[in-house]
Amino acid sequence: MSTAYQKGELIYEGKGKKVFQIKDENNFIWIDFKDSLTAFNAQKKGSFESKGAINRDIASMVFRYLKKNNIDSHWVADVGVNSMICEKLQMIPLEVVVRNVVAGSFAKKFGLEEGIEIPNPIAEFYYKKDELNDPFISDDQALYLMAARSQHELDSLKKMGLLVNVQLKNLFAKLELRLVDFKLEFGFNYNKKICLGDEITPDSCRLWDLKTNEKFDKDRFRRDLGGVSEAYQEVLNRMRRMWGSEL
Amino acid sequence: MSTAYQKGELIYEGKGKKVFQIKDENNFIWIDFKDSLTAFNAQKKGSFESKGAINRDIASMVFRYLKKNNIDSHWVADVGVNSMICEKLQMIPLEVVVRNVVAGSFAKKFGLEEGIEIPNPIAEFYYKKDELNDPFISDDQALYLMAARSQHELDSLKKMGLLVNVQLKNLFAKLELRLVDFKLEFGFNYNKKICLGDEITPDSCRLWDLKTNEKFDKDRFRRDLGGVSEAYQEVLNRMRRMWGSEL
Repeated sequence: MSTAYQKGELIYEGKGKKVFQIKDENNFIWIDFKDSLTAFNAQKKGSFESKGAINRDIASMVFRYLKKNNIDSHWVADVGVNSMICEKLQMIPLEVVVRNVVAGSFAKKFGLEEGIEIPNPIAEFYYKKDELNDPFISDDQALYLMAARSQHELDSLKKMGLLVNVQLKNLFAKLELRLVDFKLEFGFNYNKKICLGDEITPDSCRLWDLKTNEKFDKDRFRRDLGGVSEAYQEVLNRMRRMWGSEL
Repeated sequence: MSTAYQKGELIYEGKGKKVFQIKDENNFIWIDFKDSLTAFNAQKKGSFESKGAINRDIASMVFRYLKKNNIDSHWVADVGVNSMICEKLQMIPLEVVVRNVVAGSFAKKFGLEEGIEIPNPIAEFYYKKDELNDPFISDDQALYLMAARSQHELDSLKKMGLLVNVQLKNLFAKLELRLVDFKLEFGFNYNKKICLGDEITPDSCRLWDLKTNEKFDKDRFRRDLGGVSEAYQEVLNRMRRMWGSEL
């Protein structure tokens, strides 16, 4: 299947991914997952070998799991060890963050301890603009800045975020991982339909071991906890153990 | 009228006001407007003579103007030169900020130039907690922190903020002043009704001269522009010229 796709010109290089055109194909793109790791708006940089391959495998399994559960994403096919064919999306410049447990910036901002359960998961928007440090943004502000076209669109994004959350919580619970919070990005596909994009990996999710609360996500890098690559690998191993070739 | 009220014990001293009990009267409080000026969560401090008296007069006139236009507030009566009798409110720990023009933190946060008109005024909430620096807060976050009891209550606060905005814009336009943005606080009165509290003064509003864009508000102090007391006095003078003894 993957041999059908031929990598074209580089469209965009982000902190964790490179995006390429595909020859003779306008609706799809080719994404390479890089080995680099960044935090705090790229002020902190690192990398580890095979990170791109691990994250590609995790993201792919998560997208396929969501598809099985009736949530479409941009994922089309895997190619090579660290690449993915995806639908080309016109991205909405909002990060949708969903929180099940108090952690990270939320804990800091409101002076709360990390680890407190949030009974009704909270969906938040952040305005994707590196030079502004991706600020937290309200619906009205997002509409003023035309980051979204309507309140209905914002409501849809939140609803989709919370729907994805239900599925991801289940998925990670099966892996003995607690889904603390995560970030999603959406865009419009060639059918003008809002579609889940970007990635779902330990870069974009906080995942704590269900029993020990050990962190299996980018906080190991952010907070210099060590064992970064081992943590990412362990998430993938648990997924593989669970599904084998099923997905 | 005012002789009926006797100042009781100090309940609370804030950055700009002192609040006292009233003897033999449980539903009302006595508020002294202080001469002090603070900015950036009290990291910058100042004062000028008669500031308390000027702000009491401005706040009183604004509250009476709103009352005439069917918007109730906690204002009951003026006493002395810098004091006010008000309904005792159980305060809601949210600041309601309404913006008509891009300025201040909004400009900085989104990298916008000050002075751009906002066609649909934006209402925002900030969580009133000095030790957290009054962070910007979304509806869902406010509900999680129990800063409000329901989405309906948050919707009401926004609606009231926007309603006050319509009246204040009219009021200040008559004074040749452009209402750029302002902050309101609300609380529950003894009838359990949500009631406009705090103050509306050049401390809590951005007011620019309609023709020259000259600032007549606390930004003169925040940004070391000089002429602070003259600006506050000028706002009061314009009000007095307009109304005389009418209000």
